Amino acid sequence: MTHPIGVIGGVGPHAGLLLVERILAATEARRDQDHLPVALLSYADRIPDRTAFLEGYAPINPAGPILDVAADLARLGVQVAGIPCNTAHAPAIFDQVVAGLPRRAPGLRLLHLIDEAVVFVAQRVPRARRIGLLATLGTYRSGIYDVRLEKAGLLPVIPDSEMQEARVHRAIYDPDYGIKAHPGPVTERAMGELSEAIDHLAARGAEAVILGCTELSVAFRDPGRSPLPLVDATTALARALVRETAPARLLPLA
Amino acid sequence: MTHPIGVIGGVGPHAGLLLVERILAATEARRDQDHLPVALLSYADRIPDRTAFLEGYAPINPAGPILDVAADLARLGVQVAGIPCNTAHAPAIFDQVVAGLPRRAPGLRLLHLIDEAVVFVAQRVPRARRIGLLATLGTYRSGIYDVRLEKAGLLPVIPDSEMQEARVHRAIYDPDYGIKAHPGPVTERAMGELSEAIDHLAARGAEAVILGCTELSVAFRDPGRSPLPLVDATTALARALVRETAPARLLPLA
Repeated sequence: MTHPIGVIGGVGPHAGLLLVERILAATEARRDQDHLPVALLSYADRIPDRTAFLEGYAPINPAGPILDVAADLARLGVQVAGIPCNTAHAPAIFDQVVAGLPRRAPGLRLLHLIDEAVVFVAQRVPRARRIGLLATLGTYRSGIYDVRLEKAGLLPVIPDSEMQEARVHRAIYDPDYGIKAHPGPVTERAMGELSEAIDHLAARGAEAVILGCTELSVAFRDPGRSPLPLVDATTALARALVRETAPARLLPLA
Repeated sequence: MTHPIGVIGGVGPHAGLLLVERILAATEARRDQDHLPVALLSYADRIPDRTAFLEGYAPINPAGPILDVAADLARLGVQVAGIPCNTAHAPAIFDQVVAGLPRRAPGLRLLHLIDEAVVFVAQRVPRARRIGLLATLGTYRSGIYDVRLEKAGLLPVIPDSEMQEARVHRAIYDPDYGIKAHPGPVTERAMGELSEAIDHLAARGAEAVILGCTELSVAFRDPGRSPLPLVDATTALARALVRETAPARLLPLA
């Protein structure tokens, strides 16, 4: 019996669903029974906001509750799992999760979303050198993408701080029009601000843009007419989870 | 801490995701942390096809593997769960699941999708009396909808057997164009055959149509321009799961 793929969900809840949808889409299957087993624990109520912790507005490290979910997944027999939240991969959170795994979730291995996203950039846009990034403040300031892109010989292109704070961050978090409060359908205002941010990255020389926040994967579920190719970190993680669980079942890239 | 809502998923895998999406949509929430916890175990590979069992083509009762999943959910602390598969509610399967719960999944209560769908009909189309049904052969032949609709004073309208077998069933199961093999996007041929079936039900006097197979909920995710109001059993189950878990958080019907 195949061990289920584990998803530490709820971060946010729509992002977790989208990750599982992308796992299904990445799997060779003609009938229900061909699909790989997936355990999604979408415990949004238990995991504090990651950016709020990194920015110092919330005292509790989300690593603790994430480890609780990982422990539940390990008890279900999960050996490979992912967290569909880019910001949770900032070292202040992710390193503490990884440190706790051997004791709390023995046998469970967490893939690294950002590592996989950067590998995916090379597959999707092999000729691009200047790579734009759309993400939360927590992700920008942690530098988790920059360090990996540079290591891969790529040049990170980020928005200026006005664009990050007044546009990208609010398109994700604003209680009145942001994606977290209005995920389906995403509001025109949020989409408009994200389009502005993509234009801004293009003007700064980006040849492609990483959707480096899983809420943005939800917003650009159907990529539509972006002026730049979009590389979706959620798809990268989904494909990596299939590859690590049943490599022969991974569909080739379209 | 709220007990997670349990979903016995994988039947089919997209239907399980849609159920969780509908749970999110039915919940009053402005930020991630407002959502109710959900545990989705999407173990499609372990649960044999329900219609194949009911029709005598497959020897193993899916009740056994469904109970295994219920047992896992109970260990996660789940007290209320649902199965997003109409056919699994045929007595030959469902009664055996319910009988095994006290021993295998103590403390876990399964809602009944068909009961909830029929209650939902009265809320959605209170004036309709003749209610059409789109479903699998397993669901049609088990009579699970008919008996409940009649008890509620409603008249079930089903397709003739040619339409059931040559259209509705194949739109769901055909390996070349059916929804299970091609869920995203659903093929034009499958949608065409389902539209034909809705016209056929309208011609037989139906005033509304129950989407009585969770694959059909996937196909009609955006109801589009159906000539008759569609009542979605997946939405009924989602709302019932929220109601039984946190009634104050259930959004009113739009």
